[in-house]
Amino acid sequence: MKKFKAKIHITLKPGVFDPQGKVILSALKTLGHKGAKGVRTGKYFEIELEAEDKSSAKQEVEQICHDLLANPVIEDYSHRVSEV
Amino acid sequence: MKKFKAKIHITLKPGVFDPQGKVILSALKTLGHKGAKGVRTGKYFEIELEAEDKSSAKQEVEQICHDLLANPVIEDYSHRVSEV
Repeated sequence: MKKFKAKIHITLKPGVFDPQGKVILSALKTLGHKGAKGVRTGKYFEIELEAEDKSSAKQEVEQICHDLLANPVIEDYSHRVSEV
Repeated sequence: MKKFKAKIHITLKPGVFDPQGKVILSALKTLGHKGAKGVRTGKYFEIELEAEDKSSAKQEVEQICHDLLANPVIEDYSHRVSEV
């Protein structure tokens, strides 16, 4: 078994309302960052896993994203798997 | 003024306890992902901003991370700024 590390990004699909992002944008303007025009929030995960090879590690991470980490109705996800 | 997009990652410093990650790891094992060995959680932000040039955009994003988005006591942050 080889060891892999997956870096996973989960973001709201374009068009899905992001209230947390709106609040951060408003806070940035209050703090004087007048140049800020938009904020979108997301989640980031790093998963260490063992697998036979890179292809099966990728497949497992794909399933983890789809089944547990992301809500595919409103969220997009992407991941990058590398051997460590 | 040019438009820039910043991609920001915020992660817990190594050694800081990550209860959300522990819960996800336990859920993964319950779901049959026996290969999963560790999960660390983080936050991800995309900020659109206007600035004179890339260097001042980077400086502003650095300040935003330090002052608002991250807790520098327990969290690390990194960002990548690109012109759009």
